[in-house]
Amino acid sequence: MSTTIAGTDPRTATALAPVAEATTTEQVDRLAAGAAAAAPELHQRGREFRAGLLDAIADAAEARRTDLIAIASQETGFADTKLGAELTRTVFQFNFFADILRDGGYLEATIDHAGDTPMGPRPDLRRILVPTGPVAVFGASNFPFAFSVLGGDTASAIAAGSPVIVKAHDSHPATSALSFQILREAAQAVGAPTATFGIVYGIRGGVDLVAHPSIKAVGFTGSLSGGNALIDVINGRDEPIPFYGELSSINPVIVTADAATERAEDIASGLVASITAGSGQMCTKPGLVLVPTGSDGDRLVAAARAGVADVAPQVLLNERIYRTYGNDTAALGTEAVIANSTTGRSGEQGFTVSSKLFETTVSDLTRGLISEIFGPVTVIVRYDAAHTADSLTRALDTLEPALTATLHIGSGEQDLVGELVTIVEGRAGRIIFNGFPTGVAVSWAQTHGGPWPATNSIHTSVGATAIRRFLRPITYQDAPESILPPELRDNFGDIPRRIDGALQTAR
Amino acid sequence: MSTTIAGTDPRTATALAPVAEATTTEQVDRLAAGAAAAAPELHQRGREFRAGLLDAIADAAEARRTDLIAIASQETGFADTKLGAELTRTVFQFNFFADILRDGGYLEATIDHAGDTPMGPRPDLRRILVPTGPVAVFGASNFPFAFSVLGGDTASAIAAGSPVIVKAHDSHPATSALSFQILREAAQAVGAPTATFGIVYGIRGGVDLVAHPSIKAVGFTGSLSGGNALIDVINGRDEPIPFYGELSSINPVIVTADAATERAEDIASGLVASITAGSGQMCTKPGLVLVPTGSDGDRLVAAARAGVADVAPQVLLNERIYRTYGNDTAALGTEAVIANSTTGRSGEQGFTVSSKLFETTVSDLTRGLISEIFGPVTVIVRYDAAHTADSLTRALDTLEPALTATLHIGSGEQDLVGELVTIVEGRAGRIIFNGFPTGVAVSWAQTHGGPWPATNSIHTSVGATAIRRFLRPITYQDAPESILPPELRDNFGDIPRRIDGALQTAR
Repeated sequence: MSTTIAGTDPRTATALAPVAEATTTEQVDRLAAGAAAAAPELHQRGREFRAGLLDAIADAAEARRTDLIAIASQETGFADTKLGAELTRTVFQFNFFADILRDGGYLEATIDHAGDTPMGPRPDLRRILVPTGPVAVFGASNFPFAFSVLGGDTASAIAAGSPVIVKAHDSHPATSALSFQILREAAQAVGAPTATFGIVYGIRGGVDLVAHPSIKAVGFTGSLSGGNALIDVINGRDEPIPFYGELSSINPVIVTADAATERAEDIASGLVASITAGSGQMCTKPGLVLVPTGSDGDRLVAAARAGVADVAPQVLLNERIYRTYGNDTAALGTEAVIANSTTGRSGEQGFTVSSKLFETTVSDLTRGLISEIFGPVTVIVRYDAAHTADSLTRALDTLEPALTATLHIGSGEQDLVGELVTIVEGRAGRIIFNGFPTGVAVSWAQTHGGPWPATNSIHTSVGATAIRRFLRPITYQDAPESILPPELRDNFGDIPRRIDGALQTAR
Repeated sequence: MSTTIAGTDPRTATALAPVAEATTTEQVDRLAAGAAAAAPELHQRGREFRAGLLDAIADAAEARRTDLIAIASQETGFADTKLGAELTRTVFQFNFFADILRDGGYLEATIDHAGDTPMGPRPDLRRILVPTGPVAVFGASNFPFAFSVLGGDTASAIAAGSPVIVKAHDSHPATSALSFQILREAAQAVGAPTATFGIVYGIRGGVDLVAHPSIKAVGFTGSLSGGNALIDVINGRDEPIPFYGELSSINPVIVTADAATERAEDIASGLVASITAGSGQMCTKPGLVLVPTGSDGDRLVAAARAGVADVAPQVLLNERIYRTYGNDTAALGTEAVIANSTTGRSGEQGFTVSSKLFETTVSDLTRGLISEIFGPVTVIVRYDAAHTADSLTRALDTLEPALTATLHIGSGEQDLVGELVTIVEGRAGRIIFNGFPTGVAVSWAQTHGGPWPATNSIHTSVGATAIRRFLRPITYQDAPESILPPELRDNFGDIPRRIDGALQTAR
């Protein structure tokens, strides 16, 4: 029995043309075996070869910009401006990982020459990172480019030297198919093994992929329930493998009393823009905003309400998100402790919804009352500005840790800010000052991750060090120079290395 | 109902004096809550403070050298020379992690100043690694110092800034108790929080510890079955946490034809020393040795047999290891494809056993025939020197991946060696040339880890980068200078940092 995979136009809720058949267990088996066979070659072709492959993918994606945006727009309902910016990010990301390969610092190349130690003579030891092996990447619904087939997990895994098999997200199979074609053609153009890239369609294919013995790591951006289901699959494997899941995040925003006094209206307008970016379907959307009691806080809330009331109808990605948004916002609205919701303008067609703003107080918060809702909604929580630190700690104790925590602070609050940073540091992977968490720059210093359930990883999924997820260390002891990787030979100076304990930059 | 914890003298198989009561669930709860409360302080006291703590532990352990060795000798049956060398390593390890803290490179401090990018303006982003939170460390039977209460997991977790609760190994509870006293007193001496260190006794206490919500990572060196049991406990938690297990390793040794010709007797004597080090109870003991057919190989085997026949009786650590060694070597000896075992000198008392050497051929190997046996035993496998690469690939395909792979090579075998390295690279974390895998140097470039079931980690448990296991990244976006950790401020130059993409060494 085969199942046809097709997307839906979320603006009209009508089915689109079929894209593919659901991948069978036998097909997954062949793809995974191919990836395992291609892995040594991809590793041995070296950094410069893979940098060229990444640049070729970037160029190919840029060349298909118009097609990619058109097809993704139809499948996701996202505006062309959002999709264009996302594709720019995707292209940048492939070029960026090419730069990271050429820099070579990610290899953590380390040489300890033979010598005497307090423990006696030490052999010559040389350490480098090598690829883990084939990686399964699960495309996300909300980033059809930057977290999907052409996304950061793919870029960082290929940079590491591991073949990638992508599970296409059911929300955008045609975008995924075109993206995969770009990957495949770029690989062919530079002479990479054909099995460098693979793609599977359908839930069963994704599960088979994660269960397959040839898969050595999984990158996943999606829901907590979906992530937990895949963790269960991994727990059933003979060989446990790392699962890098980015799962669920409430992204609290804290506004101090002075910040409210100084910038109530600016913060409110930034907030409305942030909660409606991508129709509120960003992993970093602020789900809860802590605003002080008192007149300045009232001003901020009034401005935010006015902003939300004016928000145009928002198209959500698919029927599941649309129904969940309706159910979850309705349920929240009926909580006794939630007051005075404001609703944006409404639309009728497809998976269109109105934005929502709810309000409550810290003393009414209970653990688990507020959790992530995908879509253009947030909850303002008023806290007692006379007891800011205690009140905010109490509020944050009702929440799960998150990808981000945001502080809007006033100009003269040094001591309070230090205290707030201490409170949020254990609960997030990125702390934003006087800004908003949506919009994640791809750079060397970025962290997109956080304590469970934001992720289950001690590594980021965005930025340079995302590559570390798909590498493992290996040490050569007393090896002849000729068999060492070039980066571990004595006279190689093109990359940063730690030699006899001292870090050296590339010469 | 309480259970008393006491060791056994393995030289006589008689029980030793009681050390402690088994730790109760309530006690584990108090310890874990204490560790969670101490964690922020341990982090905020900073690198120099923790370096001082580590040095104080090293000094205190050195000061108790005589007592530690005496008590460990009684509980483990290890020779004083082995225990003395191990304690030296332990002391070195604490000092080494103090050096790593002072170096500061482990923080991966990264600064991206605000600026324009192809994706538009980028905020100021500053990344650093922070502790994961309290760590549970499981002491190993076979290293009462270097992989136990005073071991590398403890040193690296404390260096990272995470409190540690150790599960004492039942083979050496009195050694563990004295080791813990040293930790506790050193912490008091430097003014560290009392709950920086905790200890639990008994299997139930260990399980409760791993299940406790305040524990954020687990370091484990032990058996595959023990590791799998703890992985199951973690799979039952609401919050998954990293489990760093070092579990099982066959450590194949490959001798090429030229190496046998050039150094048959030297290799044989080194091999016998390696398989009997620590009574064959090292994680890196060679469990399988691939020797070419032909007269040079015959010479090597004859010399190894003579060496094993002459090995004095060996004392094993405990009754479980003693019984398993007896059962597993007896079972191996009855395999139809195993021929001509050689047995060392025998002893009668306690958990004393004879060394064993078995022999078979590559064509008789089947998957799973040879697996890890703790104790002084190895299997020599003869391969066809006319088809070295094929024959060795076939042999290694019958084995699980390992911590190490060792190559004994001749002086003129460049091409063959390259081929062999390619074969073993995917199957081990350390590749040794013309040496033996036992004896793991503690250094910057060391890797003690490997693909499952050697470990389930993409990180090492020995050497500088072991600290990475207990850290997670955090990024500050547009943060005021005053709230940043010192290492992320613009004018701090004491540690290596990557600034706007360029690595800079400490100034």
